[in-house]
Amino acid sequence: MTVSCKTVLASKVSASFREQMKKDIKERNICPKLVGFLANDDPAAKKYAEWTAKTCAETGVAFELRKVDKQDLEEKITEANEEKEVNGIMVYYPVFGGKQDLYLQSCVSTLKDVEGLCHKFVYNVYHNVRYMDESETMKCIIPCTPLACVKILEFVGVYNTVLPYGNRLYGRTITVINRSEIVGRPLAAMLANDGAKVYSVDVNGIQVFTRGSGIKLTAHKVEDIDAKVEDVVPLSDVVITGVPTPKYKMPTTLLKEGVIAINFSSSANFEDDIKSKASIFVPSVGKVTVAMLERNLLRLHDYQNNLLEQKSSN
Amino acid sequence: MTVSCKTVLASKVSASFREQMKKDIKERNICPKLVGFLANDDPAAKKYAEWTAKTCAETGVAFELRKVDKQDLEEKITEANEEKEVNGIMVYYPVFGGKQDLYLQSCVSTLKDVEGLCHKFVYNVYHNVRYMDESETMKCIIPCTPLACVKILEFVGVYNTVLPYGNRLYGRTITVINRSEIVGRPLAAMLANDGAKVYSVDVNGIQVFTRGSGIKLTAHKVEDIDAKVEDVVPLSDVVITGVPTPKYKMPTTLLKEGVIAINFSSSANFEDDIKSKASIFVPSVGKVTVAMLERNLLRLHDYQNNLLEQKSSN
Repeated sequence: MTVSCKTVLASKVSASFREQMKKDIKERNICPKLVGFLANDDPAAKKYAEWTAKTCAETGVAFELRKVDKQDLEEKITEANEEKEVNGIMVYYPVFGGKQDLYLQSCVSTLKDVEGLCHKFVYNVYHNVRYMDESETMKCIIPCTPLACVKILEFVGVYNTVLPYGNRLYGRTITVINRSEIVGRPLAAMLANDGAKVYSVDVNGIQVFTRGSGIKLTAHKVEDIDAKVEDVVPLSDVVITGVPTPKYKMPTTLLKEGVIAINFSSSANFEDDIKSKASIFVPSVGKVTVAMLERNLLRLHDYQNNLLEQKSSN
Repeated sequence: MTVSCKTVLASKVSASFREQMKKDIKERNICPKLVGFLANDDPAAKKYAEWTAKTCAETGVAFELRKVDKQDLEEKITEANEEKEVNGIMVYYPVFGGKQDLYLQSCVSTLKDVEGLCHKFVYNVYHNVRYMDESETMKCIIPCTPLACVKILEFVGVYNTVLPYGNRLYGRTITVINRSEIVGRPLAAMLANDGAKVYSVDVNGIQVFTRGSGIKLTAHKVEDIDAKVEDVVPLSDVVITGVPTPKYKMPTTLLKEGVIAINFSSSANFEDDIKSKASIFVPSVGKVTVAMLERNLLRLHDYQNNLLEQKSSN
């Protein structure tokens, strides 16, 4: 058997976004400012912060890293919420690691939440609400890492552009190994909202996300199923992993021949021989996530300026 | 040694609130409606639901228990948010058990959140913000169980009414064994905001909550300390336990002579000989929690009606 797997690097996927961003910022002669809060010693968080700094410098975004004690973080976020020159705020999680981090995510002002992790934005993702305001002038911010995964899936041709927008994953089966509140669950919902059948796997079991038919909510449907990873992975056209430990490895033998394999964990979750089975392999997504951060930042920068103009013209 | 511990039952503490509620509802000829969602088989949740039903029936509140599948819960909450005849909504947690429950808490409309668990209310507790609106016509809803603990502490004389309001716990040392986002952490913050020194204990370690001096936030201050339960419990005038398992027992030998011992777990967290050491022992708080739920319900009922009147007069 000839190995014919194509490895797609995040830097390749993010290049066009980065170029567009750079061009926009230069032509419009603006300098959006992003503040990142680092309140832990997590090596993955530090690496992510370094990437953010590097990418921002390249594209013309003013990035300021603020290292703070975790106990001061909430006050520092509140200060940054009020600083006029700050257009976007992000936090390198985990900070406390548990539910308190979810609390912190909603402490970032909606108008500065480049990560898209406050309750309003996550709620809107689940319910397929596309705009922040009733007059539909401000598109919602979508959580960065799930958005990065979607952009990668578009780049590698999983979204079928022949199908109508909003249904371009119809017919696709996707397994997501991670059901965290900040990546796995919103990602599963977004993919289901676009028509996919999604197996969402975590230590507590497996759920199937499909396009829903709720009466009040335009939301995906979720069912618990009595199945194992071994049952659902072989059925999947795409397998996306995000287990935050190098110990976790998705067995290559489970995967369907020609699978598209994407890893968003900072550890390698696929085995070394993944290319013997996959048609496309994306070993990491971090650089696309940073590109999405910048994209969200530019949007929020514009929303803030539009609101200021509206205020001054009233 | 003579045992002279006074046992204070939650029913005793809640009696005056219940009577006041009953009187208000009767005199004003109103019938506030509370909807409770049960989406689990947890025996403690069922018991809590039964108490809610019983207490509501006694006081004149219309209570409707809606048993739903956990996967339908969010849609059902959204429906109830829009039902005009529903004044308050509560959920018997845990549902999913992890961060997803925190997400659900913020799905309940602020104007119907009798439990006070949505992000806005929890945020306001941490920052000592007392009103929902800028014109200070609507007092914030405070999370029920922490509020119940405060009312019990007032009842048993821990709050010193000689001191000014907002400083009535000054000089008191209190240990809280539980730092959950729905009870332990807001409780520690509330007690610190009222002047106490609070040792907040969970499996990850011990933090001290004191009155803070933040510049932007009028919030308590939190510090991690390198201490053990054995170090802080003997220093505490009050020990409040909330460990959700009967296996956890606070050793009576650790407690200070004459301590005030309060247990809000549905399991007994103090040892059988607690009365040999404590001056006051409160074995459970559930009935006070339900009384606080009703109190919050009446407030929200009135806010909703005031807002409707304002709308119709505009």
